[in-house]
Amino acid sequence: MLNVKEKGDKAVFKYCKAFDGVKMKRLAVSQKEIDKAIESVPSELQTAILQAKKNIELFHNSQKEEVRKIETMPGVTCWRQSKGIEKIGLYIPGGTAPLFSTVLMLGIPAQIAGCKEIILCTPPDKKGKINPAILFAAELCGISKIYKVGGVQAIATMTFGTETIQKVFKIFGPGNQYVTMAKQMAQQYSVAIDMPAGPSEVLVIADESANAEFVASDLLSQAEHGIDSQAILITTDEKLGKQVVDAILNQIELLPRKAIAEKALKNSKLIVVKNISEAIELSDLYAPEHLIIACKNANEVAQQISTAGSVFIGNHSPESAGDYASGTNHTLPTNGYASMYSGVSLDSFVKKITYQELTKEGLGNIGQTVMTMAAAEGLDAHKNAIAIRLKK
Amino acid sequence: MLNVKEKGDKAVFKYCKAFDGVKMKRLAVSQKEIDKAIESVPSELQTAILQAKKNIELFHNSQKEEVRKIETMPGVTCWRQSKGIEKIGLYIPGGTAPLFSTVLMLGIPAQIAGCKEIILCTPPDKKGKINPAILFAAELCGISKIYKVGGVQAIATMTFGTETIQKVFKIFGPGNQYVTMAKQMAQQYSVAIDMPAGPSEVLVIADESANAEFVASDLLSQAEHGIDSQAILITTDEKLGKQVVDAILNQIELLPRKAIAEKALKNSKLIVVKNISEAIELSDLYAPEHLIIACKNANEVAQQISTAGSVFIGNHSPESAGDYASGTNHTLPTNGYASMYSGVSLDSFVKKITYQELTKEGLGNIGQTVMTMAAAEGLDAHKNAIAIRLKK
Repeated sequence: MLNVKEKGDKAVFKYCKAFDGVKMKRLAVSQKEIDKAIESVPSELQTAILQAKKNIELFHNSQKEEVRKIETMPGVTCWRQSKGIEKIGLYIPGGTAPLFSTVLMLGIPAQIAGCKEIILCTPPDKKGKINPAILFAAELCGISKIYKVGGVQAIATMTFGTETIQKVFKIFGPGNQYVTMAKQMAQQYSVAIDMPAGPSEVLVIADESANAEFVASDLLSQAEHGIDSQAILITTDEKLGKQVVDAILNQIELLPRKAIAEKALKNSKLIVVKNISEAIELSDLYAPEHLIIACKNANEVAQQISTAGSVFIGNHSPESAGDYASGTNHTLPTNGYASMYSGVSLDSFVKKITYQELTKEGLGNIGQTVMTMAAAEGLDAHKNAIAIRLKK
Repeated sequence: MLNVKEKGDKAVFKYCKAFDGVKMKRLAVSQKEIDKAIESVPSELQTAILQAKKNIELFHNSQKEEVRKIETMPGVTCWRQSKGIEKIGLYIPGGTAPLFSTVLMLGIPAQIAGCKEIILCTPPDKKGKINPAILFAAELCGISKIYKVGGVQAIATMTFGTETIQKVFKIFGPGNQYVTMAKQMAQQYSVAIDMPAGPSEVLVIADESANAEFVASDLLSQAEHGIDSQAILITTDEKLGKQVVDAILNQIELLPRKAIAEKALKNSKLIVVKNISEAIELSDLYAPEHLIIACKNANEVAQQISTAGSVFIGNHSPESAGDYASGTNHTLPTNGYASMYSGVSLDSFVKKITYQELTKEGLGNIGQTVMTMAAAEGLDAHKNAIAIRLKK
């Protein structure tokens, strides 16, 4: 981190060579590169990304807060208003999967929030290129400043700024353990982050009405994420539990990421409980990032849940729908953090400023209250700010 | 921190003796103590606290978010719902001022949010007592578990739990540099905190229409907070600037906390600018915790501000109104953090869970989009979770 602070771009180039194995001449992606990349994205994928964008936009637009002016006493009016965080940075990891879906999940609400400067950092491949679908998604979200830099050095550039890349106020996005640690360090230099990150997880609550094949496919789509992923099944029906295990053993054979999924399943659990209440209680204690409810009256069960990142209701709502395109955000609290954090939403990209306006009458109405309280807290200048006005 | 984790209450008692100079036998405040304390609060102060509570409640109630179900595609419905964070801890410092107002600012939204367990820690005085107004305010907010423990040891108990005090999910409240550091450390043990804390500040934008006496009183009510407080005046009118300085020199003589205010004023600045646009630009760069706008068309100026914790509009809106009773929250981002953080609000006490429910038709509509995207990211199990359902 500190090397980038001191040496700027020079340090970044050095780390690009060391960690990404590519000698870079410039970090910024040119408009020409973007245009060329867009042409190479298959039209079927372009259509899918556009559809996902539309849904994510609709849902995040609905999170806008109207300004409500509240007269708490006659002549004392309070309200709050959201303003976009001026400068933000998005980090999109490279590695095995090109996460253009995460570009949408972060870029769309940033655009709706009215963030003025949105920059994106993502590591180049060995040829110094970025996956075209990432550039296509970024362009759709109005992100014009894209830099080919990954890992700790990317977080450091957005924290301190360099000759090429400017410092931001808040950094968003997933990453490996080094990126996560770098984001934690960034907080010590007055940069905010979206949320603490950990391994991903799904919990499925299923009763005898669930479809074992569906449940197995949901557990596996979590397991393929990484070897530290966790997939939990809580069921009231032991028979269903066994069917799900059988279905997993069948389905896993066909997966390209079988080796990863197998390792992840070693961390995973199948728990048989007496009734749905017990399942809800256990789930709340676990605080799952993703919760799938595959049982009768799924909507009622969902209402009783008090802790989860995102909830998928019924047999036709797989996690992958929310991961890509239903409209909800896929950047969610993992590792038990759903007990105290919300997922990324429009809120994450704004500051909510409060305002108050008092009329002369309003100050008269509230004056005695403030003066009495200020005096009791021993803060006479606070009292005086009222008294001096009331005297006029 | 770690001593409390290992030794529990025993360590807490030791630190109470060492730092608060009092040998405690029990940490929990009894209902008898609370009842007795309430009787001793002067009725004028009780009335003031009740009035403040009413206003704060009204404004924070208005921050409740109605559930909006959005059909992003036919058969694909998304919404989000707030649920109170189950267990939270409030820290109220002791020291020179008994901050019962902070009890209201944290306790009221916690109650509205529906947090199930709200505990409060505050240091005892040399006699092992807590200021009655703090107990009165806590009782009003439905906080039944109050513990006589302060400083780092209070944060440690809420982070790890002891025999008496239970672990919480999120810790709120101000404190000195040791408490602030302890809260930062708590984050490493999977506990969330309200926001990073720093010295408090006010910025006043004033033109020739401002009243120098009023402005001086506002700057001084910030300066009396602590020697590291900062009070900034940006004015388009040099004459007003001089009048404010004179008024400060007069008013400060009468303040009991004069010595503190004098030291704070040494960090403070008076800046003369050419016009209001320049003032707005400077203010946004400074990102003030409190911003007072004492100029013509104050409301229009407020609309142009993009960064501040809380804004006080016009000559009759002193900061102290918001510190105690206008209805807005006084727990605000300091030290430049207004660039990326919001003040405490109802949002701070809830998790916003997202939900999605797809009908069979909805899954049909979204299926191809999800499968195309999942395949392009190389996540076949995600694709399979859709395909297997569509086949049925």
